[in-house]
Order: sequence, then structure tokens, then C-alpha cells
Amino acid sequence: MSLVIVGSVAFDTIETPFCRREKIVGGSGTYCALAASCFTRPRLVGVVGRDFPKKTVSLLRARHVDLRGLAVRRGKTFHWEGRYAADPNVRTTIRTDLNVFADFRPEVPPAYARSGIVFLANIDPDGQEFILRQFKSPSLVAMDTIRFWIETKRDSLIRELGRVNVLFANDEEAKLLSGESNLIKAGRALLSFGPSLVALKKGEHGALVFGRNFTFGALAHPEAHVVDPTGAGDSFAGGFLGYLDRAGRFSPREFRRATVYGSVLASFAIEDFGIERLTALDCEAIEARYREFKRFTAF
Amino acid sequence: MSLVIVGSVAFDTIETPFCRREKIVGGSGTYCALAASCFTRPRLVGVVGRDFPKKTVSLLRARHVDLRGLAVRRGKTFHWEGRYAADPNVRTTIRTDLNVFADFRPEVPPAYARSGIVFLANIDPDGQEFILRQFKSPSLVAMDTIRFWIETKRDSLIRELGRVNVLFANDEEAKLLSGESNLIKAGRALLSFGPSLVALKKGEHGALVFGRNFTFGALAHPEAHVVDPTGAGDSFAGGFLGYLDRAGRFSPREFRRATVYGSVLASFAIEDFGIERLTALDCEAIEARYREFKRFTAF
Repeated sequence: MSLVIVGSVAFDTIETPFCRREKIVGGSGTYCALAASCFTRPRLVGVVGRDFPKKTVSLLRARHVDLRGLAVRRGKTFHWEGRYAADPNVRTTIRTDLNVFADFRPEVPPAYARSGIVFLANIDPDGQEFILRQFKSPSLVAMDTIRFWIETKRDSLIRELGRVNVLFANDEEAKLLSGESNLIKAGRALLSFGPSLVALKKGEHGALVFGRNFTFGALAHPEAHVVDPTGAGDSFAGGFLGYLDRAGRFSPREFRRATVYGSVLASFAIEDFGIERLTALDCEAIEARYREFKRFTAF
Repeated sequence: MSLVIVGSVAFDTIETPFCRREKIVGGSGTYCALAASCFTRPRLVGVVGRDFPKKTVSLLRARHVDLRGLAVRRGKTFHWEGRYAADPNVRTTIRTDLNVFADFRPEVPPAYARSGIVFLANIDPDGQEFILRQFKSPSLVAMDTIRFWIETKRDSLIRELGRVNVLFANDEEAKLLSGESNLIKAGRALLSFGPSLVALKKGEHGALVFGRNFTFGALAHPEAHVVDPTGAGDSFAGGFLGYLDRAGRFSPREFRRATVYGSVLASFAIEDFGIERLTALDCEAIEARYREFKRFTAF
């Protein structure tokens, strides 16, 4: 099959209680594509400004990320700045400069039109239809969202949920979107909005996946040293969808494995700043950690 | 083997956003003994006042809880009143009337002296030695604690950790006691205080168990309807230790299974107010839910 990822390619400025990093490469599309590249050759659709480092472009290519869908526009690359508390689950956005991402109307290269899996990584819900129309009946459409869209474009978002097969959301987003304070009820309520699979990410507590006929729970890797939680959710989606693309089947069994691979990739992403750890991964490290997950949870 | 549980037998007044129950039977020892009674004939050491219902005493006996260690004193039974927020993980203590529990110096019946497993369910750390001296070299000593003792008797508590094999604590207590904000670091730090096993309870997010040579994670049962979270942690300990008592071996493999049985019992406890659900359990229901845990987490 083939996986297309439509998302942001950005600079992040990140502050943790221990360290500050200025304008390192990030973005939902970047994390997701790098995570997926461990399983497949993901196609990345996004936009950057002329200030985006050529070195990173080369690095993404070296990791087998297909960049024919990455537009370079006059102007500056999307820049997000955030700060993490001692509890890495608590983060504050300091500033968001959308720059060239502000009026991003993604043109999907014709060569991508017959891709099997399409992932919309927190795109403006009102822009999703325009993107999806450029694909010829993909087998699986997935989307992620963020608090901002839930609060500002709730109706559009719920409409778009009717068009996708898989929704990724974190626990807070799931509760906000469904209006349920119990996460199990929230997951089931989101299923009723349209998707046949809802994957809820709970950070250090793992992930819950709700299907029409099954519920699956995965723990997070027991990480004693979280360096930078940025991109964990996007890496989860990338590992999940990258694995599915390679597996080529959408059964509950494969969804379970995809969830664990998603957790594996997320666990690597947070071990270093930005995309550093993801760009240094090899297959053996991933399979070794997958086996660690088995040992960690076996009874 | 045989399991002795030293803990409170109490009345609880509980308020949730949906309901209020006045003076229903609760207490750490009660929950723990009932949960353990699904696997073994636990021996309960505690104290109640003359107001404690005879019906409950009969009910505990009917569930094969050995009550030779339950003293009845002139005065009133320990009474705790608490309120849960919409998020059942958030609770506020409204009042605590220790009553006959105030100067509880447990006399362990001589018939219990050679018990294999002793569990001190959040006892004043300064009273633990007095209790433990009444046992003849138990194979396994376990303890639980609460925020109150960590804040008021930290040094005594740390001293007592050197005398036990297993510590049960919730995530908040583990962080407070270890001074670590990362739960994995907290669990490992607590191991260094003496216990060879640290079981950290995370409510809806499951449990993490740290041994000298292994780490095990269990998810919580996906509960859509949490009626009353009171006693979940005590039921976890009861299921855990009750299972171990029946298994008669203290290997990592049995600790893993014990953790899942603990989670099974906790999941039942929260499905109704007070001890109602636990007193209506049969073996088949427990085994069926254990298999559900397998299906829920299998990949």
C-alpha cells in the first residue's frame, strides 16, 4: 500500500525545566513521517518557508520519506514555542507563528492520488474535504485533532468525523469532544460520530483503542527519563499507520499490533529533543522495544 | 499458607456527583479481606464499636473471613466521610472520626502467629513493629500507606519500609514519599528503601509493579460506570495477596498474575457502593474478568 501524511513541518522552540532549545525541527507531519518511515516509505504533504534547513530535507529523504508533496514557499516556516512543566503532561503554548502554514491549501501530487492510507494530522477541519477530494478512494482515512479545532470549529470537526475511518485524539481532547468525563464512555461516544476506530492517547499511561467489536489497551513504555514530550502523539500515529501500511490488513489483530508499534515509536520520540532520536532509529531497536512491551505486560 | 490483614473496619459516608450514602460499611481491612476471600480464608485483625452491624459480621463470616482477630470495643466504629468530584480520582475528606480506632493496639490472636503473609493496611508506622513482633517469621510482609502518614511520620515510615517485602502505594503517595515526579523513578527509588516489590496503583490507568529484576504493567479494566471508587486500592491489595496466598509461591510470574487479580478485584469494587459488589462475587465472575483482561491487552 502507501501512506500519505498531511501535516505541519515546523520549527519548535521548547523549554523544559532542565533545558531550552531554539527553533529545532518539529511539526506533526515531520514526527509522523519519521515514525512511519520505520515501516514504509511515507509520503509527506506540507509546506515550509525558504528558511527550512536543506540538511533536514536531506535527512528526511535519507530516511525514505517521499517529499514530492512538500512545498517550499517564500516566507518563514511555521514556528511553535512551548514550555513543559515538571510534569511533562502539562504544557503551555507561548507563541504560534503560522507563517507559510497560515494559508496552506495542500496540493496533493497526482502520483499520490491512489494512496491506500491518508492521514490528516490536525488539519483545519474546513480544509479536510479539499484534501480528501484529491484522493481516489483510499482504503483508510485517519485524522488527528487538537483542542483549538474542538473549541473553535466543533461542528465542522464532527462533520469530518463522519468521513474518516480512524480518529486519533488524546484523553483531554476525547473528553472535550464527546462531552463525557469517563474516558471509556468518551471513546465509545466518538465511535458513534463515524470512525470505526478511535485511538486515544494517554501519554505516560498508554493508549486505548476502541473498535466496533473490540477494545484494546496498551501501556506506555516505562520511561524514567522523558527529555522532550513534543511529537509523542504524532509519532504514535506514524508508528501505528506505518505499521498498518506495511501489514496491508485492517483487522483487530493488526490494530492491536499497530497500537503497540505506535507506543514504541512514541517512547523513542520523547527520549531526546525534537526528531533527534527518531532519525537515529533502526529496525532492530524497534523490534527489541516491541519485545520489551511484550515482556512488560505479559502475565 | 495463610494471610492476615490488619486494617480498619469502618463506616463510610460517601458523596458522589450522583448519590450520597450514609454510614455504609467500609474500611481498608474490610475491602481487603473481602477481595482476598475470593482466593483464601483471610484473617482480619481490626476493631469496631458496638454499633457495628451484626449482619455485616455474619456476611463476612459467610465469605470465609476469619474474624477471631476482630475486637469489639465499647464506643463507636471508625467513621470516614468523603466526597468525589466528577473525576472519580479526585476526592476530598470531609471528616474522620477515629472513635474506637484511635487507640487501636492490635492484639493478634495466637492462632495467627504462624501466618505466612501479613498485610498492614495503612497502619500508623509507629505501631507496625508492635504488630509484627506478634508473628513468627512470616514469609512475606506487605504494607500500604496514606498521604497522612507520609506527611506526618515520614521518618518512621521510611524505617518501616526496611522491614517489609512489599509496599503498596498510589501514584501520588509514591511521588510524595520518594520525592521523584517521574513515576518510574519513584517506583525504583522506593525499592531502594527496602521492599523487594513495590506495587503502584494508578486508578483508572492500572498498576505498575517494580521488582528487583523485573517491571510489570497492568491496565485497569475499562470501566464505563464507576459508581464508588472507595476501597479500590484495598481491594487491589486483597486480590493481590489473596491470590499469592493461594499460589503459595513468590516468583515474578506469580506477582504478575497477582497484579492482574488485584486489578480484577478493584474493578469489581468500584461497580457499586461500599462492599456490595464484593460480597456478591463468585469465582466464575473473577476468572471471567481475568480472561477479559487477557483479551483486552493481548497483542
